[in-house]
Amino acid sequence: MHGTMQDWPLNVWKLIDHAALNHGDREIVSLTCEGHEVRTSWRHVQGRAKQVAAALRRMGVKPGDRVATLAWNTHRHVESWYGISGMGGVAHTINPRLFEDQIVYIANHAGDRVLFFDLSFVDLVEKLAPRFTTIEKYVLLTDSGHMPKESNLDLLCYEDLIRGEDADTAWTEVPETAPSGLCYTSGTTGNPKGVQYSHRANVLHAYGACMGDVLDIRSRTVVLPVVPMYHANAWGVPYAAAAAGAKLVLCGPHFDPPTIARMIRQEAVTMTLAVPTIWLGMLQHLDATGTDLKPLERVVIGGSAAPRSMIETFEERYGVDVCHAWGMTEMTPLGTIGSLSAEALKLPRERQIDLKCKQGRGIFGVELKLVDDEGRELPRDGHAFGRLMVRGPWIVQSYFRGDGGTILDADGWFDTGDVATIDPQGYMQITDRSKDVIKSGGEWISSIEIENLAVGCPGVAEAAVIGVAHPKWDERPLLIIVRKEGADVSAEDVLGYLEGKIARWWMPDAVEFVDSIPHTATGKIQKIALRERFAGYTLAG
Amino acid sequence: MHGTMQDWPLNVWKLIDHAALNHGDREIVSLTCEGHEVRTSWRHVQGRAKQVAAALRRMGVKPGDRVATLAWNTHRHVESWYGISGMGGVAHTINPRLFEDQIVYIANHAGDRVLFFDLSFVDLVEKLAPRFTTIEKYVLLTDSGHMPKESNLDLLCYEDLIRGEDADTAWTEVPETAPSGLCYTSGTTGNPKGVQYSHRANVLHAYGACMGDVLDIRSRTVVLPVVPMYHANAWGVPYAAAAAGAKLVLCGPHFDPPTIARMIRQEAVTMTLAVPTIWLGMLQHLDATGTDLKPLERVVIGGSAAPRSMIETFEERYGVDVCHAWGMTEMTPLGTIGSLSAEALKLPRERQIDLKCKQGRGIFGVELKLVDDEGRELPRDGHAFGRLMVRGPWIVQSYFRGDGGTILDADGWFDTGDVATIDPQGYMQITDRSKDVIKSGGEWISSIEIENLAVGCPGVAEAAVIGVAHPKWDERPLLIIVRKEGADVSAEDVLGYLEGKIARWWMPDAVEFVDSIPHTATGKIQKIALRERFAGYTLAG
Repeated sequence: MHGTMQDWPLNVWKLIDHAALNHGDREIVSLTCEGHEVRTSWRHVQGRAKQVAAALRRMGVKPGDRVATLAWNTHRHVESWYGISGMGGVAHTINPRLFEDQIVYIANHAGDRVLFFDLSFVDLVEKLAPRFTTIEKYVLLTDSGHMPKESNLDLLCYEDLIRGEDADTAWTEVPETAPSGLCYTSGTTGNPKGVQYSHRANVLHAYGACMGDVLDIRSRTVVLPVVPMYHANAWGVPYAAAAAGAKLVLCGPHFDPPTIARMIRQEAVTMTLAVPTIWLGMLQHLDATGTDLKPLERVVIGGSAAPRSMIETFEERYGVDVCHAWGMTEMTPLGTIGSLSAEALKLPRERQIDLKCKQGRGIFGVELKLVDDEGRELPRDGHAFGRLMVRGPWIVQSYFRGDGGTILDADGWFDTGDVATIDPQGYMQITDRSKDVIKSGGEWISSIEIENLAVGCPGVAEAAVIGVAHPKWDERPLLIIVRKEGADVSAEDVLGYLEGKIARWWMPDAVEFVDSIPHTATGKIQKIALRERFAGYTLAG
Repeated sequence: MHGTMQDWPLNVWKLIDHAALNHGDREIVSLTCEGHEVRTSWRHVQGRAKQVAAALRRMGVKPGDRVATLAWNTHRHVESWYGISGMGGVAHTINPRLFEDQIVYIANHAGDRVLFFDLSFVDLVEKLAPRFTTIEKYVLLTDSGHMPKESNLDLLCYEDLIRGEDADTAWTEVPETAPSGLCYTSGTTGNPKGVQYSHRANVLHAYGACMGDVLDIRSRTVVLPVVPMYHANAWGVPYAAAAAGAKLVLCGPHFDPPTIARMIRQEAVTMTLAVPTIWLGMLQHLDATGTDLKPLERVVIGGSAAPRSMIETFEERYGVDVCHAWGMTEMTPLGTIGSLSAEALKLPRERQIDLKCKQGRGIFGVELKLVDDEGRELPRDGHAFGRLMVRGPWIVQSYFRGDGGTILDADGWFDTGDVATIDPQGYMQITDRSKDVIKSGGEWISSIEIENLAVGCPGVAEAAVIGVAHPKWDERPLLIIVRKEGADVSAEDVLGYLEGKIARWWMPDAVEFVDSIPHTATGKIQKIALRERFAGYTLAG
């Protein structure tokens, strides 16, 4: 039943068609692996995306087939993306920072038929190719002048591949629920699992992202997504920018603060998006060089929580508005946004910063709720913390190939694996990962909150908190510390420092000092490894 | 095939659920027919909407049934709207300004089972009730203290009806393509035709409206839609405001400039939407009283074209940004928006005003194209004018009950009945209605352009241009003039005034003076009546 309104499927290629027709001259500026700075436009990129689609058809790729990319943010990656989805294919963005075994696993599990990759990854691809079981064609995202002299692979040259193809070929009509993209989670446990994005999810997400209170991307916006396209669709920016006709600035393989700062100034970037690590380096760079980021207006921070001092420095010293965003690969990825609500705008500055430190409010299209271990809904009082559950049209229903089985509860909610609070104004704050939260006497203790405080203690370089078994309380917190070089901070010093900053029953029962704490490929603390190392650790009864 | 993303239907009640949960305290302020000023909130209005849904179920209304409203913009109208759609019903907004025969026709054609109406319309409803063939229940949108002492109808009192109903009842799950609303076009020919909006169309339209470049409605926005809810959903504002959590200000039966100006100042309204007639009165009021509209930021104008002087006065004298919007009942209604693009922002002020006089650029989700009489697409050069065709998910597929038969062409385009140009930047400008355009020697002449110029001639009160048969050129323009009281402007005066302002071959072949020009219920010139009156008019060969 279609009522009496038009059946106009939400296909991702409609985004770039809109940009090409209505904002055709709006620029896409891209740094490349060859060291060039390419200045192109939505109209030109759309035509080349159509050439990609035509080339893939010629190569025998069929709707539903996966075509992988191992590439930085460049105009060619944008063209490939739209071209793959536009011929009905599934654009599988592989994260090149994963361990080699994971890349091999992911490509084979996805059944990728073609791999588009950047010059940076020639050695890697040549090394891994013998282990790829489904890839038939290797396309190097470059021109003939930059093709390697020799290779153990039968490499195709991207520019040669698409030259001569029809830049006006029709897109392939597929239902809006058909897959258009694929991205694997870099899970800390087990094999990575694939999230297959539908056309519909990506288009609805683009609408959500363009809302004034969300990313507020519009025609006048000049957006530089530092966040990579292989990391949860660069938070949807290449889709939202097309819907709005924004100018897109892409830094290719460059993530260093001087290059990003230069591109911001040169291209008059008004908004940019990245993880806190990038901004930490940027603030150090600005401080060291005595420069600023004018005319930058806004920085969107996600991936992990931005420290309060970072938010304050950006806003007070550099006049750049900071906004948290939170989401995950399973959410296309945007879930919440930290923009200030009408009520928050009336608060004193300090209270506004308090809110800006939280992960933000649910976007229309993302339902959020907190539940306890028994599935009972918890109040939005800013104190109760529980499992964060989400529901919406751009949230995963099941993993690719059914991995992990049924992942939604009976009412269709997806468990994010995060533990959070939600305040009465709707601002959500992540307090822990649910597998890391410490369950003491039926109550929950946030490992992250203790860690964040502990690293403020003089002499502490890094801190991790894990739960260890306790005969009476089930679990109690163990604080694991890496001392700063040359420091001789003691357990008593650290505990004394925490005293009064957290509830008494949250105080760690013991402190252990180690030389280093293990990390995942994406820089997160590997709590599993720590729990293995401290398995059987005995606390006083 | 649902890919691997969640199946989360786009139901309109999800909009108000989002507002109630995330922006529950955000206000809805409403003037009422009883003379009150009601201050409520999204949370409260959502609860009362659920009570409406429960009451309708108790009355035997089933999903798919039409429930009509004959009401001004008030909180009760918003509650009724969401309540009707939320139990699966179809909220049929009847325009009380239509002729009585049209209201009777529409209510009967829709098969409305229940009518919710405002105190203003008691006499009207009592008079028309004997002619309504399907309405079973009459609900007066008031409290018991304001119910009429006697009536020839068995009137139900809205507040009594919903009191005691469950404010937490579940909404009715219907597919997103199911109908949620119904609105009839006030066509100048034949019977009005119904446009049945789906849940999906309204929700996608709300996303479109919230985009930064479109209505830019966000949490901090305080929006006063002067445009009535019975007029193409008040341009979607009650849906978009819920999606964004904006404050909503409603003026009930009041459309007079003093009341609107008072509410703008009192409630700190930041944006408002209305037709040019309202703003003409407002500018006269401000001028006469020496007042302004602070803190108003933006005025969105649609329905018909705003004169250049109106745009300039708002922007230069009152510091209020003016933006055209264009759409129609068949389009939910938004199609284009006149916000300035990145390129336009770099133009000199005069050129920006030129663009602001146009109807604007297509929103993502609305495809626009121009075609000639043979269906060939015309260029976007700002000069070629042709039939304006539209396509998109919130554009009509067919009229209610199939009236008018197949209304889309083979490629799914809907003919707006407007004639327009589109410039290379995508700004569309309506130049005529296609049935009013004059076809002279295979070329088109815009009747509206000549009329707009002719009213600038001293002594001319009103002007209309129609095509009359011509032996050589098929049609030639006849200019029909109403003189200002006491003026004695001649045909030579008017033609002399037009000389040099339009192409020579556009010059009217004759001028006729009349005492008055007939208008439709909505104030448009009735060209059909003029064509009948001047049928057989003979021009020199």
